[in-house]
Amino acid sequence: MQETRLDTARIRAARQVIDPIFLDTPLYRCEALEPALGCTVSIKLETANPVRSFKARGTEVVADLLADSGSRAAVCASAGNLGQALAWSGRGRGIDVTVVASRFATVAKLDRIRALGARLELVDGDHEMARERAAAIAQYDGIRLVEDSLDIETCEGAATIGLELMDSAPAFDTVLIALGGGALATGVGHVVKTSAPEAEVICVQPLGAPAMTHSWRQRRVVTTDSTNTIADGVAGRYPIPAVLNDLLLVADDAVLVQESSIIAGMRLLLTHAGLVVEPSAALGIAAILEDPDRFADRHVVTIVCGSNVDVDAYHRWVGAAPIHRA
Amino acid sequence: MQETRLDTARIRAARQVIDPIFLDTPLYRCEALEPALGCTVSIKLETANPVRSFKARGTEVVADLLADSGSRAAVCASAGNLGQALAWSGRGRGIDVTVVASRFATVAKLDRIRALGARLELVDGDHEMARERAAAIAQYDGIRLVEDSLDIETCEGAATIGLELMDSAPAFDTVLIALGGGALATGVGHVVKTSAPEAEVICVQPLGAPAMTHSWRQRRVVTTDSTNTIADGVAGRYPIPAVLNDLLLVADDAVLVQESSIIAGMRLLLTHAGLVVEPSAALGIAAILEDPDRFADRHVVTIVCGSNVDVDAYHRWVGAAPIHRA
Repeated sequence: MQETRLDTARIRAARQVIDPIFLDTPLYRCEALEPALGCTVSIKLETANPVRSFKARGTEVVADLLADSGSRAAVCASAGNLGQALAWSGRGRGIDVTVVASRFATVAKLDRIRALGARLELVDGDHEMARERAAAIAQYDGIRLVEDSLDIETCEGAATIGLELMDSAPAFDTVLIALGGGALATGVGHVVKTSAPEAEVICVQPLGAPAMTHSWRQRRVVTTDSTNTIADGVAGRYPIPAVLNDLLLVADDAVLVQESSIIAGMRLLLTHAGLVVEPSAALGIAAILEDPDRFADRHVVTIVCGSNVDVDAYHRWVGAAPIHRA
Repeated sequence: MQETRLDTARIRAARQVIDPIFLDTPLYRCEALEPALGCTVSIKLETANPVRSFKARGTEVVADLLADSGSRAAVCASAGNLGQALAWSGRGRGIDVTVVASRFATVAKLDRIRALGARLELVDGDHEMARERAAAIAQYDGIRLVEDSLDIETCEGAATIGLELMDSAPAFDTVLIALGGGALATGVGHVVKTSAPEAEVICVQPLGAPAMTHSWRQRRVVTTDSTNTIADGVAGRYPIPAVLNDLLLVADDAVLVQESSIIAGMRLLLTHAGLVVEPSAALGIAAILEDPDRFADRHVVTIVCGSNVDVDAYHRWVGAAPIHRA
């Protein structure tokens, strides 16, 4: 394998600075899902932590470096999970965090960002506009801009999931990874391909937000004019060239799935695994549902990467009426 | 503290024979729950494993002993979670498992018991009738009867949760434990009271299944004629004297909660923690909801002990219409 931007020794070192509350997450076979999917399915569960997504693995690494260097402030753009994670990691280290998000972002995510003490700024546009605004704030205020997937620490943090997958027995055949900016896919992919090149790394993106998948297939950055998916966590339009280069080295495939499959995946995870997940976290199950023959009799690991949903929207997706708010 | 039937060295040894997939479960503060509860809340999550409850900690210890002694069969009565766990632990060790359950038991639990390869026998009565029938099968077939809470291995397995709680920082003030047969309460209670006598151990039972709580309060076995609760996992009528004796030594209190509080607890865990839980697993939250002043400003750990629900019933409870089955 040609060299990615990642380095396994640095990933191992990253584990040392991440709060253990985010590490060594559950990894277990979920047989109840298997009749519906036709393959052996293991779940790597990244939702049972204070921010309900894997993103804090990366922000812990970022915030540790910031604290070491005496930085007192940082800003990021986020669909909601990175912002929540950076707010959490920053709060514990006395770092002022500003998060820029789309005003169309998931309300529950925005509420949690505020509750964790971050300053939240909303833009009247999508995630790419939030990225522009965050960059402007960083330049104007002279503070660190945390760029998901571009900043190597975010990839290294995500890559620690890969270390945990490789430490587990039995070995798996395929890992299905939600593809957005690419930190999770390149991080986990790097570790898997370094330790077990025969294991298949398949990235999954919604048909409604296909920029990185198109880029991977054409081996050059392809942007889109808009996105249209409920999987808010992966809805980018401008792939980052350096991340695409890494993805080209570690991904065996990148597939696109329909919204209906994402919803069916969320419903399966609720019904047979008792898991509430956000749409991005159901992408792996959606990929199996769309192409069961491809995965038949294989042992597939899917990373359940987040559970931050608006409960009413969640019930709409899985088919139930809005609940009476607790 | 007077001596319970439990022994900390044996509990530490139990950890060595339990499949690690059931150990070192997530323990994390869930700030999103706190505004509604008025105290600091940490969750010990026992649902992210192949049987979706803590019960396999105990059945792993039981099955390990059975396998060592060359036993090839065992039988238990179960509301569903113990049966699922024993089926899982037995299957891995070539032990034939028979589970006796009420025909009114949660369908999802019965389905999983069958799917795990156990023989399932249903009785036309409640859990106490299932216990009688299981004892008769054991006697007739000359096989091991696994009795939840009476068999010390089931308590030792549950007690390993206590070790994990004590290893964690920061220290908590109170642990809330679902009370049914008593294995979880006496196991965890023993460890907590041995290591941190100042920490409060509070057991929680439904008003509709109060036998053990009445027994604890009156310091003698009190039975009831019937149970009436959605918390199927803790709905016993005949407390076991030896378990009551242990509970008297380790519990600081035993409280009863209403069904409406259990449902409100399930709803809070869904809305603010993204967790699907079975009714028994919401007892701790229910106790806080019923007496917030008691817990104000304390750090409370609640053990989320299982997530095996019938999805339609779950939606009925939390207030949504039945979902379209995946």
